Amino acid sequence: MSNNHNESAHSHRYCVIMCGGIGSRFWPYSRSGCPKQFIDFFGTGRTLLQMTYDRILPLVPAGNIIVVTNESYADIVRRQLPELLESNILLEPARRNTAPCVAWASRHIHALDPEASVIVAPSDHLVTREHDFEKAINSGFDFVETHDALLTLGIKPTRPETGYGYIQAGEKITGDIHKVKTFTEKPNAELAKVFLSTGEFFWNSGIFLWSVKSIIKAFEENAPEIAACFNADLMKGKSSGQEAVKSAFAASPAISIDYAIMEKARNVYVETVTFGWNDLGTWSALYDNSPKNSDANVTQNCNVLAYNSSGNIFAVKGEKLVVVDSLKDYIVADAGDVLLVCPKAHEQEIKQIVNDAKVKFGDKFL
Amino acid sequence: MSNNHNESAHSHRYCVIMCGGIGSRFWPYSRSGCPKQFIDFFGTGRTLLQMTYDRILPLVPAGNIIVVTNESYADIVRRQLPELLESNILLEPARRNTAPCVAWASRHIHALDPEASVIVAPSDHLVTREHDFEKAINSGFDFVETHDALLTLGIKPTRPETGYGYIQAGEKITGDIHKVKTFTEKPNAELAKVFLSTGEFFWNSGIFLWSVKSIIKAFEENAPEIAACFNADLMKGKSSGQEAVKSAFAASPAISIDYAIMEKARNVYVETVTFGWNDLGTWSALYDNSPKNSDANVTQNCNVLAYNSSGNIFAVKGEKLVVVDSLKDYIVADAGDVLLVCPKAHEQEIKQIVNDAKVKFGDKFL
Repeated sequence: MSNNHNESAHSHRYCVIMCGGIGSRFWPYSRSGCPKQFIDFFGTGRTLLQMTYDRILPLVPAGNIIVVTNESYADIVRRQLPELLESNILLEPARRNTAPCVAWASRHIHALDPEASVIVAPSDHLVTREHDFEKAINSGFDFVETHDALLTLGIKPTRPETGYGYIQAGEKITGDIHKVKTFTEKPNAELAKVFLSTGEFFWNSGIFLWSVKSIIKAFEENAPEIAACFNADLMKGKSSGQEAVKSAFAASPAISIDYAIMEKARNVYVETVTFGWNDLGTWSALYDNSPKNSDANVTQNCNVLAYNSSGNIFAVKGEKLVVVDSLKDYIVADAGDVLLVCPKAHEQEIKQIVNDAKVKFGDKFL
Repeated sequence: MSNNHNESAHSHRYCVIMCGGIGSRFWPYSRSGCPKQFIDFFGTGRTLLQMTYDRILPLVPAGNIIVVTNESYADIVRRQLPELLESNILLEPARRNTAPCVAWASRHIHALDPEASVIVAPSDHLVTREHDFEKAINSGFDFVETHDALLTLGIKPTRPETGYGYIQAGEKITGDIHKVKTFTEKPNAELAKVFLSTGEFFWNSGIFLWSVKSIIKAFEENAPEIAACFNADLMKGKSSGQEAVKSAFAASPAISIDYAIMEKARNVYVETVTFGWNDLGTWSALYDNSPKNSDANVTQNCNVLAYNSSGNIFAVKGEKLVVVDSLKDYIVADAGDVLLVCPKAHEQEIKQIVNDAKVKFGDKFL
C-alpha cells in the first residue's frame, strides 16, 4: 500500500462522517436546531462539518464520503455540503447513539463495495495539523486493508485530562500501531496524572478505521442484536424508502460503538497519533485550546471590550459587541434569543440548565 | 382657582414634554437611535414617553400638550403618540440642553396663548402614584396662575441619595409651596444624611410650572442672550420652516434651565411633593426602585433563569431568555447587537465605555 493520493489507488477507501449530535453542552451557542457541527465555531467561514469534510477530501474519493445525520438536519447538511451526493446522505430516523449509525453505514458501504475500507469520524472535532492527520489516516488505511483489524486512533495526551476516556496501548505491531490492552473510563485527577506519566495511555478520539468486512463481522460476533437489525436485507429494501430504516432504528438498542464493539472485540488496535486534536467537548476544553488575547480571554466570532476581565470565553453569534467589566473565568454565550453567563467551572451544570429551561419554557429555547 | 378637571376651565393650561435626551447612562439598553424615553422600560406596553403623556392627559387639554424632541426622533414621537397634533411637535435641530428648549417652547406657547400656564416635564421619569401627582400639579397650576412665580417640584427624599441635586425650602407661602432658599449640587454621602435629617431639603425633580409670561420675563432678566435667540420674531418666522429655529439653536448657549434661570431668579418657589417619583437616572436607581424577585434580582422585559445570583438587574429587549450563574450585583443589559455585563458599582464607567466603543467601532454600536 502507498501514500499515493491518486483517486483510483484509493477507490476502495470510504469515509463515514457522523453528524447527528445535538451538542447540548455548548448550549445556547449550539442549539438543537443547529448544533455545534453546523456552526462556524472559529469564524473561519467554514463550519466544523465543512472543516471535517475538507480534512477528509485528500484521503478518499469525494464520491466515497458519506454523512450520517438525523433526519431533522438533512437540509442543513445539503446546504453546508452542496457537493455531497444525495445518495451519500444517510438520514437517521431516531437518535440511537453511534453503534446503530455505524452498523447502518457499514451495510450501506458493503452493498456498494464489499472490498471497502472505512474511516469513521465525528463531524465536530478540531484538527490543527492536517498534514499529520493525513499521514496518520493513510497509515491506518494501509493497516486495516492488510489486517482483520478494528483500529482506533489514540491521541498522545498533553495534559492529565479528566474529561476523556483513555486507551492503554499494548504490544507494538508496526509503526505507531499497537494492540489495545484496555479501554478506561474517564479517570479522576490523580489517575489521569499516572496515565500521563506512564506514556502508555492515549485519549480515545472516537475516530476509527476498518475494512467493511471486519466491522460487519465484528457486529455479528459482538453485537448480534444490532447486526440483526441492520442486515443485508435492509439495504435491499432501501430503494423502497425510509420505512425499513425506521423499523431497524426502532428495533435497535441505543448504544455507543465503543461499548458495543471496541471494548468486546479481540482484534482491536490503536494507532497513537498527534495532530493537534480537540474534541471541542466542553467550553473549558475549547478555552484551553484556543488562542487567547492579552487578557487571557478567548473570543469567538464577536467584538469584545473587556475591562478588568480575564480567563473568559466569549461565544456570541453575529456582529455583536460584547462589553464586560469585572468578569473572571466565565462563559459568555449568546445566540440570539438566549444569553448564558456562567462560570467555566460550572459548565457541567449546563445540561441541568437546559433541562430547567425545557421545564419552564418548553422547547422554545432549546 | 379650583381642582375642577373640566377642559374649558383648564383651557389655558399647557404642558411641555422634554423628549430630546440620548440616555447614554442606560447604554446599551438605551441607544442613541432609541433612547430611554422611547423604551417600554417596565414591559407594561407603554414607553416612558407614553406613560408621561398618559399622566399629563388628565391635567391639560390634549391639544395643549407639546413635545419638544430632537429632529432625529420625530418619527418615533409620531409613532408613539399618534394622537399628538403635528403642530405640537417641536423639533430641535441641535442638542443645547434644557434652557433653549424651554425658551423656544415658551415662545411657541406665548404665540398661541399669552395667558397660558405651563408644566414642563421630562419624558423619562417614573411616577407611581398618579393621583398624588395630579393633585400636586393642579395645586402648582393654581399657584403659578395667581403669582409671578417660577415653581419647581421638590421630591421629599426617602434616602440620603448622592445622585441628585437638592432644593432647600424656605418660608412657607401656602399649602406645600415654599420660597426656595438654595439649590445645591449633588452632596457627598455625609452631607446627604444631614440633608435628609433636617427635613428642609428636597430632590430637584426637573419638573417646573409657571405662567408663560413669568418664564419669558425670567429669560429676559436672567438669560438675555438666550432670550435674544428665541424672541417673538422667531415665532413669526416659524411658518417659513425650520431655518429660523436652526439659527436660534446655533446661536444659543447650551445650558440647563436650572443654571440659566432657576438658580438666578428671585421669584423661585418649590412645591414639596411625594408621588412615587424616580428619575430613572442610573441603573442603581432603577434597581433600588424596582420590585425584586426572591433572589433580589430585578428583571426588565425578559425571562431569567438565575443560579447563585442576586442583586442583579437584567434589562434585555425582546423575548430573550437570560441564564446566569454566580453573578452578584451586576447589570446585564442586552439590546440586540450589544451586550453589557458590568457591576452595578461601576455604572459611572458606562459613559467611558460608550466613548471607547465609539473610538473602536465608530457610531455602529451607539
